[in-house]
Amino acid sequence: MSLYHVLGAKQFTRPMLDQIFEVTEEMERIVADGGSDTYRNKVMTTLFFEPSTRTRLSFESAMSRLGGKVIGTENAAQFSSTIKGETLEDTIKVVSAYSDVIVIRHTDIGAAERAAAVATVPVLNAGDGAGEHPTQSLLDLYTIKKEIGRLDDLHIVMIGDLANGRTVHSLSYMLTNYKNIRISFTAPENVQIPNYVKKYLDEKGVAYEEEYDLEKVARTADVLYQTRIQKERFTSLSEYKKACGQYIIDSELLKVMKQDSIILHPLPRAGEIAVEVDEDPRAAYFRQAQNGLFVRMALLDQAFRAK
Amino acid sequence: MSLYHVLGAKQFTRPMLDQIFEVTEEMERIVADGGSDTYRNKVMTTLFFEPSTRTRLSFESAMSRLGGKVIGTENAAQFSSTIKGETLEDTIKVVSAYSDVIVIRHTDIGAAERAAAVATVPVLNAGDGAGEHPTQSLLDLYTIKKEIGRLDDLHIVMIGDLANGRTVHSLSYMLTNYKNIRISFTAPENVQIPNYVKKYLDEKGVAYEEEYDLEKVARTADVLYQTRIQKERFTSLSEYKKACGQYIIDSELLKVMKQDSIILHPLPRAGEIAVEVDEDPRAAYFRQAQNGLFVRMALLDQAFRAK
Amino acid sequence: MSLYHVLGAKQFTRPMLDQIFEVTEEMERIVADGGSDTYRNKVMTTLFFEPSTRTRLSFESAMSRLGGKVIGTENAAQFSSTIKGETLEDTIKVVSAYSDVIVIRHTDIGAAERAAAVATVPVLNAGDGAGEHPTQSLLDLYTIKKEIGRLDDLHIVMIGDLANGRTVHSLSYMLTNYKNIRISFTAPENVQIPNYVKKYLDEKGVAYEEEYDLEKVARTADVLYQTRIQKERFTSLSEYKKACGQYIIDSELLKVMKQDSIILHPLPRAGEIAVEVDEDPRAAYFRQAQNGLFVRMALLDQAFRAK
Repeated sequence: MSLYHVLGAKQFTRPMLDQIFEVTEEMERIVADGGSDTYRNKVMTTLFFEPSTRTRLSFESAMSRLGGKVIGTENAAQFSSTIKGETLEDTIKVVSAYSDVIVIRHTDIGAAERAAAVATVPVLNAGDGAGEHPTQSLLDLYTIKKEIGRLDDLHIVMIGDLANGRTVHSLSYMLTNYKNIRISFTAPENVQIPNYVKKYLDEKGVAYEEEYDLEKVARTADVLYQTRIQKERFTSLSEYKKACGQYIIDSELLKVMKQDSIILHPLPRAGEIAVEVDEDPRAAYFRQAQNGLFVRMALLDQAFRAK
Repeated sequence: MSLYHVLGAKQFTRPMLDQIFEVTEEMERIVADGGSDTYRNKVMTTLFFEPSTRTRLSFESAMSRLGGKVIGTENAAQFSSTIKGETLEDTIKVVSAYSDVIVIRHTDIGAAERAAAVATVPVLNAGDGAGEHPTQSLLDLYTIKKEIGRLDDLHIVMIGDLANGRTVHSLSYMLTNYKNIRISFTAPENVQIPNYVKKYLDEKGVAYEEEYDLEKVARTADVLYQTRIQKERFTSLSEYKKACGQYIIDSELLKVMKQDSIILHPLPRAGEIAVEVDEDPRAAYFRQAQNGLFVRMALLDQAFRAK
Repeated sequence: MSLYHVLGAKQFTRPMLDQIFEVTEEMERIVADGGSDTYRNKVMTTLFFEPSTRTRLSFESAMSRLGGKVIGTENAAQFSSTIKGETLEDTIKVVSAYSDVIVIRHTDIGAAERAAAVATVPVLNAGDGAGEHPTQSLLDLYTIKKEIGRLDDLHIVMIGDLANGRTVHSLSYMLTNYKNIRISFTAPENVQIPNYVKKYLDEKGVAYEEEYDLEKVARTADVLYQTRIQKERFTSLSEYKKACGQYIIDSELLKVMKQDSIILHPLPRAGEIAVEVDEDPRAAYFRQAQNGLFVRMALLDQAFRAK
């Protein structure tokens, strides 16, 4: 049942998730004890065709904390053989020869699956365009488990750009593994949750609703999952502006939220959570970022063991 | 006889090549056994004034597999002190102070020699403009030796952009160390092998011919060495288009090739070898890329021992 | 008294400087003995919002020589979450979770202090715009101590762009810790030393003068500290040209300099020290660059011990 490739949220079953989170807890202890050099002879390659400093550094720190070596490129699209006309498949075949694991971020949906199809080493999807971002969803779930104490019986409100935000898609898919989940989608009119996500939830029997009144759903929410309106995904500035600023989490909203609820955000934020919220104990988004390190360590560990 | 700087193909004698390939075989075993940490206290700096993700990752993986540390820059031309007016010589003097070995890629012919002249550590040339790319030629030769079993008595066909392709120049020079070599140069009219390469082969008594009929020479070839028409080396699009698409290795050509021949390519490719060829056992170009790791490990090992 | 953050020159007292230089000497011995792996489980993140290959490589080599791991970004401004609208504070909070120390270079004055205010790990300022560059000044002082044998009783001439050159500001501040210091500021008319630096020297009782005759002050100088006219800090080309080429150190100037004096330069240079000077034993600027490695190792060591 050990993991090899990590490609999309739908590949995970509840027992797999249980096991990953168990290893993640072990990784927390390893970091607290000063790190490990178990994988000192392993090489991880980060191939980022789309920049994402945060996600890249998180993976590179995870590999370093396990004692491993990191090579890679910050900007594969601009510098690599790609501009000389090389296919992704050829790039992956060659990079496989230099690596024990490949972490890929790409602009195209399905790129990670194409990479995995030809790679001779495990491939971890660090985001493929408007597709998926499964390692983010794993750290989201792990954070909920750690903060709230359970992954069943939850009311989760997803807020912001639900059309382009791949993290909410992946998280929705993964939540279908749990019982008695209720999701509220709270999005500006022009960036609502896609039908294919709703269809998947229907198939899996997960309850959801589209609700425009943030204050109303915040009253019963266990988790407010805020996301950024991603300017770079919009083709027109006027569409972007229409989506912006409609749903902001601030000290007023904190007042109606339950005491044992939490606020998550995949980060970076750009104003959709007021800075004043940071001091509230329910603001869990920086702890969530920290959990990304532990979860990615666990995924690397699983990949090396599976090999 | 141990190597220190690796600057150009002409510096290598047959005994030196024999020794490098012997160490390379040892490196293959070391990688198979899970790597080494012999050079854990050594620091390699990669200075890439011209992007080449593939070559850089290959060197960085090689250093990592030997346990060493890697620092460097993906794009020295854009980011470094160069844009502040610093000479290459000053850059190298400073970087020498931080490094145990420098791997340099530069746009200017002779840049690696200029670097070696002032460096206080070994310099490995990872390509200097339209000049040389000696580590590529070493891995080419190693691949031929490993795949065909010998480096004497060979018919080698070099195909594609032979005017701008530095790998074919360096490989031609190195082949003069071996007996009974016959080279066929098969290039589009506007990118033929330069006179200075032919002159060197004449001096060394190596047999060569310029032949426009690829199918004819493929019948007797032991090695088909295909190269990409390098768009970035052309000043006019019409010249580029004239050179493109004339010589493609596909399943039709496979039919006339000898069973014990091989196809090499320095990669990346951009259509000049059809994807259908990949499945044929004679398609050795991905194994060739893998050999790059072992050869570069051997060169680093030699450089550290020579010090 | 152990150091944690390194933010600006004014934070250093003479006993702190004594201690840093003692550790620096130890680091020289460690490098001579082949390095250390004391900090093999530590991770350093380099966040360079403004490119500076030299400074970054110096820090990364320092961390590597101590056995540590390095992650980071060459060009945080272009690639990071910053372009998605993230504040520096948010970036630092997240990166803190992945790192044991953060090295930051930024375009804005005070950026390092803002980073330190929210970081949960030590922050080392590698230059904040036209603000400070304290690690450079520490290596400058260390070089003077090593080359001249003392840090009291010195005549130091600072030459070049004294308006925009943060290294001369930081160095001037640090020199106030020593006795009987005399500073001559020799700058083109449009890039003279700012009043706030002179005011600080006045407060601390350090003797200084503004002197346009380089040859005159060079006769008594113990240290000529030359700096580059930084084209990138000028808004008009004509202003830049006015400042350029006025004060050049060449073989003629060497003739009037004292035999036991030294020439320093933070590098890169762009013509303001003639290449012919390099061979003179008083040309200490490349040894100075080398000392940067040792000083940064000492600062990392202090930061990890303070933690």
